Amino acid sequence: MAEPTFRIVEVIYEGMTQLDFTAPHTVFSRIPNSETIVASKSGGAVTSDGGLTFAGTRAMADIDRCDLLFFPGGLAATEVINDAAFMTEAKRLASGARYLTSVCTGSLILAATSALKGRRAACHWAWRDMLTLFGAIPDPARVARDGDIITGGGVTAGIDFALTVAAELAGDDFAQALQLNLEYAPSPPFNAGRPEIAPPEILARVRKNMEGIMPKRLAQAQAAAARLSAPPLGELSRSD
Amino acid sequence: MAEPTFRIVEVIYEGMTQLDFTAPHTVFSRIPNSETIVASKSGGAVTSDGGLTFAGTRAMADIDRCDLLFFPGGLAATEVINDAAFMTEAKRLASGARYLTSVCTGSLILAATSALKGRRAACHWAWRDMLTLFGAIPDPARVARDGDIITGGGVTAGIDFALTVAAELAGDDFAQALQLNLEYAPSPPFNAGRPEIAPPEILARVRKNMEGIMPKRLAQAQAAAARLSAPPLGELSRSD
Repeated sequence: MAEPTFRIVEVIYEGMTQLDFTAPHTVFSRIPNSETIVASKSGGAVTSDGGLTFAGTRAMADIDRCDLLFFPGGLAATEVINDAAFMTEAKRLASGARYLTSVCTGSLILAATSALKGRRAACHWAWRDMLTLFGAIPDPARVARDGDIITGGGVTAGIDFALTVAAELAGDDFAQALQLNLEYAPSPPFNAGRPEIAPPEILARVRKNMEGIMPKRLAQAQAAAARLSAPPLGELSRSD
Repeated sequence: MAEPTFRIVEVIYEGMTQLDFTAPHTVFSRIPNSETIVASKSGGAVTSDGGLTFAGTRAMADIDRCDLLFFPGGLAATEVINDAAFMTEAKRLASGARYLTSVCTGSLILAATSALKGRRAACHWAWRDMLTLFGAIPDPARVARDGDIITGGGVTAGIDFALTVAAELAGDDFAQALQLNLEYAPSPPFNAGRPEIAPPEILARVRKNMEGIMPKRLAQAQAAAARLSAPPLGELSRSD
């Protein structure tokens, strides 16, 4: 009997950062002997940041299981972790997956499934500390691996992350051939991609731009974390 | 009177390599005082490599003009340059644009509009030589600039390319802040991203995989180039 196809499920949502998703998808969709399914809460069309609409996604509830689960990040990540229907399906898919993966603030979604308790995970530099709300250990690495949990840092870390996953699933030679096909020999025109190396005035500018959005996002993460650490409703109401 | 919005038109097509498009789109869609329009030959939904479907694109013919024209690459690039209706609109938009840009084999499309005669352009390493069919000068740079023609190399060069364009349009500070937001401090897990640095056996493997597809693609490029250098039909049939 043929080995069942390795199933990768990428869960996207309104307001995700599309490059968090599209860069890994470029890699995942080329991994041999695997199928890649793009899923969303309700199926159908999903619009990302930058106004791109991805048509034809499958409803999470219609997917019985997966081998690798992937969440991209985005400003809306702290919203979906407060969406009970989304999180029910996210937890179900996570519980059956061998590999749990994410890019950027997608690790906050993984964390909100409770899968990251006591585990190391990467995240976008500006959001990384929120992982502690869920008992996860923020890892400043561009790609963090803790057992079969593989996570990438902010947005463009998705390429390094996905090639790491490709090597795990299909071998180093395959990953290197893919890197050559994608001509991935990066040469950024500036040296400003991390807070530690960015010019101080650039970092200050970015932090200032984020000031307006962070309090609401932090409150959303705290709300999701509080729900996670509270005992399940069933236990609270049990009278026997 | 307010300055008119700077208009960026990204032309996509069936079978494009979606990361050629989605990485630059992430950057372009954040450039201040600009609008980004995703266009295609007939408008509507367009499916890329890897099975992603982008909904809601606008028909090229419905766009009167643009300031920056952008073509991503893909295996189908050598097909669209033989599509008369596509190329009529591509030439019209190119003729009015200030900036002509591309990533990967998108430069073959630019070249087929005749805009690259005697001009330097980048392209995916395996396809770069085809530029000479159109009188263009292949440039091995990751991002090549020749006047207001700005082109990127293969696939992932699109990030370096787009940040270069962002710096041109909105300044170095803006481009650096965006780089920090996108956490673009690349750290590839392997060192195989260009033929010059890839392990020889990896390069041989990739070249072997391409053997099957290249003759047809080269013939398509030659056909388009022959049409470009032939005198227009009007001149041939003129009897007066």
